[in-house]
Amino acid sequence: MRFTSETSSDGIREQLFVLGDTPGALWTPDAPATGPRPLILLGHGGGEHKKAPAVLALARRLVAECGFAVVAPDVPGHGDRPLEPEYHALATANQARIAAGADPAPLLAEFHAMVARRTVPEWRAVLDAVQRLDHVGAGPVGYWGISLGCGLGVPFVAAEPRVRAAVLGLGGALASAEEAGRITVPVQFLVQWDDERVPRGASLALFEAFASAEKTLHANPGRHADVPAFELDSTLRFFARHLG
Amino acid sequence: MRFTSETSSDGIREQLFVLGDTPGALWTPDAPATGPRPLILLGHGGGEHKKAPAVLALARRLVAECGFAVVAPDVPGHGDRPLEPEYHALATANQARIAAGADPAPLLAEFHAMVARRTVPEWRAVLDAVQRLDHVGAGPVGYWGISLGCGLGVPFVAAEPRVRAAVLGLGGALASAEEAGRITVPVQFLVQWDDERVPRGASLALFEAFASAEKTLHANPGRHADVPAFELDSTLRFFARHLG
Repeated sequence: MRFTSETSSDGIREQLFVLGDTPGALWTPDAPATGPRPLILLGHGGGEHKKAPAVLALARRLVAECGFAVVAPDVPGHGDRPLEPEYHALATANQARIAAGADPAPLLAEFHAMVARRTVPEWRAVLDAVQRLDHVGAGPVGYWGISLGCGLGVPFVAAEPRVRAAVLGLGGALASAEEAGRITVPVQFLVQWDDERVPRGASLALFEAFASAEKTLHANPGRHADVPAFELDSTLRFFARHLG
Repeated sequence: MRFTSETSSDGIREQLFVLGDTPGALWTPDAPATGPRPLILLGHGGGEHKKAPAVLALARRLVAECGFAVVAPDVPGHGDRPLEPEYHALATANQARIAAGADPAPLLAEFHAMVARRTVPEWRAVLDAVQRLDHVGAGPVGYWGISLGCGLGVPFVAAEPRVRAAVLGLGGALASAEEAGRITVPVQFLVQWDDERVPRGASLALFEAFASAEKTLHANPGRHADVPAFELDSTLRFFARHLG
């Protein structure tokens, strides 16, 4: 794990790092300087990156208001990572298929499954490395990811026993119902009622598929990108309740 | 409006009253002694009453944590009110029909509509009377009611412009989709995913029917009576956000 920059503002320390092929950002409180503390891994959305505005806003609030550590890796082909020709070819072909009237859901599911084969081991390695740092330590782990971050998050949460609570959403059952059925930790699941990219039935089927005894679905009107701001508060309270 | 008892504990004043035919309970903070303050009307569930445990617990937290006033009337045929032969006959007939295999949803809808013809004007009169009290005053009004409290609450919220935010749930669209379409205030709507009394599709259809720009559905696993305790926290935050 190689740190490439470090800054601090408003009591929040931000370190950029590279671990193998994975660039990432780590946010921790300036004080107290040592862990262990809860750690949340954030999975960004498609076309976004580790410091996209929604990721950064959530990270800073989790640090400032909960005292947690937060880490966000760049997904392959995103952020500071090189273009992945295989992904790019599939994404371009899918855009053409969708423009020609194809159902986007199975195409998206295929794409997410392809990317998850890389990100699940990468993110587990990120947890290993970050939890060895004195200012993080081996506290409980949470996961947050919607849209692409849900498609990649479901297989990650299913595979990683350190994750004790997850906020997921804007994703359908097609890719990941089997993996969702192996998730037993508390899940908060976001649905956009008028989502133009994820059919409502597929969203509800994914919620249905989680094996968690505690799972709660939050549905709001609007399209894929219209998640209301008050769900950010709800995410903070969910993690504070389960990991704080 | 005639007060029949007054007690105080833990900074919360409780007054029982009768207004016309309607017995009710009013909870306010001991201090400050004067309003105006937000007022929440609570509609209890079927077979319950103004001081049922769930009603009392929510009322006390709204007063203690938010400084709100809370009023809960007894629904006709419930609590301190006389048996209503007309309701009793319908309820008994419905139980027999359900035991014989009838779909309970339309029977419940018919019953709720019958009761709402009484409770809508009664509850509006309760608001009039309570908001004239110095220790309440004419602040913003909220409504909370699930199950029977939703069946009666939808027509009440649709009819009463003083209500500025509502928590509803465990109810279906059959009785009240038309009235739900006249509700434009923020709504938080609770669904029990395995509700044995309200079909899931009817619940989702009622959520769909609200005309509110801000409406949020919270679904949790379990049967009709299994609403998780953390939804109480969520209710408090919803009212604090919209009325506080």
